[in-house]
Amino acid sequence: MRIVTSSELLQKEIARIKRSGKLIGFVPTMGYLHEGHLSLIRRARHDCDFVVVSIFVNPLQFGPREDLDKYPRDLNRDVALCRKYTDILFLPYLQSMYPKDFSTSVEVKKLGDVLCGASRPGHFKGVATVVNKLFNIVLPDAAYFGQKDVQQAIIIERMVKDLNMPVKIKVLPTVREPDGLAMSSRNSYLNPRERIDAVVLHKSLLLAQDLVRKGNINCKKIVHKMKKLILEAKTARIDYISIVCPETLSPLKEISSQALVLLAVFIGRTRLIDNLVIKRR
Amino acid sequence: MRIVTSSELLQKEIARIKRSGKLIGFVPTMGYLHEGHLSLIRRARHDCDFVVVSIFVNPLQFGPREDLDKYPRDLNRDVALCRKYTDILFLPYLQSMYPKDFSTSVEVKKLGDVLCGASRPGHFKGVATVVNKLFNIVLPDAAYFGQKDVQQAIIIERMVKDLNMPVKIKVLPTVREPDGLAMSSRNSYLNPRERIDAVVLHKSLLLAQDLVRKGNINCKKIVHKMKKLILEAKTARIDYISIVCPETLSPLKEISSQALVLLAVFIGRTRLIDNLVIKRR
Repeated sequence: MRIVTSSELLQKEIARIKRSGKLIGFVPTMGYLHEGHLSLIRRARHDCDFVVVSIFVNPLQFGPREDLDKYPRDLNRDVALCRKYTDILFLPYLQSMYPKDFSTSVEVKKLGDVLCGASRPGHFKGVATVVNKLFNIVLPDAAYFGQKDVQQAIIIERMVKDLNMPVKIKVLPTVREPDGLAMSSRNSYLNPRERIDAVVLHKSLLLAQDLVRKGNINCKKIVHKMKKLILEAKTARIDYISIVCPETLSPLKEISSQALVLLAVFIGRTRLIDNLVIKRR
Repeated sequence: MRIVTSSELLQKEIARIKRSGKLIGFVPTMGYLHEGHLSLIRRARHDCDFVVVSIFVNPLQFGPREDLDKYPRDLNRDVALCRKYTDILFLPYLQSMYPKDFSTSVEVKKLGDVLCGASRPGHFKGVATVVNKLFNIVLPDAAYFGQKDVQQAIIIERMVKDLNMPVKIKVLPTVREPDGLAMSSRNSYLNPRERIDAVVLHKSLLLAQDLVRKGNINCKKIVHKMKKLILEAKTARIDYISIVCPETLSPLKEISSQALVLLAVFIGRTRLIDNLVIKRR
């Protein structure tokens, strides 16, 4: 595995790789890697001839009162974790990604304005802009994202389609802790009490699935029962719970065939997200 | 020359061309080709191994009260004109470029908000978005633009740099009619009286150059004299005249070494633009 920090050098290397006809797989991350990231990297290794992983904590996707400064970092551990499966680890410098006169943005309207986009204004504009840049640097044939950040994956799929970017987006299942908590770098913020409470996100999704399987298809009622369950955890404060169409993210009143249930919940001061696609049998 | 209307087919063809190691030159146009466009296409032919020209009248870059519906078209003439120098003429369909659920935009702030961007809100967002799409489809090594649309060229250069797009932008000199009028598809709107008046755009730029060469470096005074000259033409109405830094487009008070003089003038109901880089000796 080679570590590259310069986008110009990486672009030269990528041009060489592409001329040789190799398929490039790409996993963009913000580091502090966990089993969720590793599942993406291993899949890229399996699918492609050449694997690029990037670690870049992208300031554009953090709001002014969010956790950019304290976002967890452990570069030595990250390097050790991805070494086995990665050809190039790309660690761009902040000032080379966003020089002083940087002024371009990529925005996906509608899909980027709801759910987490409503709670975190500008978040998905920051995500779309940095992923667009990274795709142009790495020129991957396939790029890998986690289902945990499903709205992000849908927005990137839409950007790629709308802008005719020649890359396939692959979305892999959420990887969970044994008790069901979705893996996230932000789980490291939780104290022991909060860590126990945090399981209510997944539990409430399972409750929703169970309700639908038993024939309850009224979204308002399902959300009400999810809320009740979540608020039994003392440290929990709900940001949003939403049941939507998996393609358009528009809210559903009833679940006819398929639905995407998403939620964001503060556990103490840590904002966690999770989601589940629910199919009516 | 092959005509291709499907972006998917073009992308497959481009992938094949790139694997063979050929350099791709690209000239995006809105058609109704004139000698200005042809100078770009010939230069692409000279520089590159494979030349793609696109013709697409991009609705995103027209305001609601602008000339989208009456924009001049003559596809048969265009095909004949570029046949000699072009490998692929790309004629995308509107609905394939912007399907119903299209929702992504690319925007260059600041550079895109002044001058023509102030007169035509959303214009450069439309330009950046369509050029971004076309670059992703054609994957050119070099793309060619005319100095006549200098703000457009500067914005595209900025977008390419900011988004790390692997393409070189080449800006070629404005091609002029014998009397100095900058060539433009919109010149076809002018009636004989207006055609005569239209020469004041270029004349006023030459006046500015002459004033600077004679030691007049106060921009306010230069603009005042340009205005006076232009308004001698009965059908002329000034949209803006501006003297700016050629890199940042910020207004200058005095010309120290180099300046970009830009103007937009309505001749009758036709809005024309022109510009000149002026160097102090």
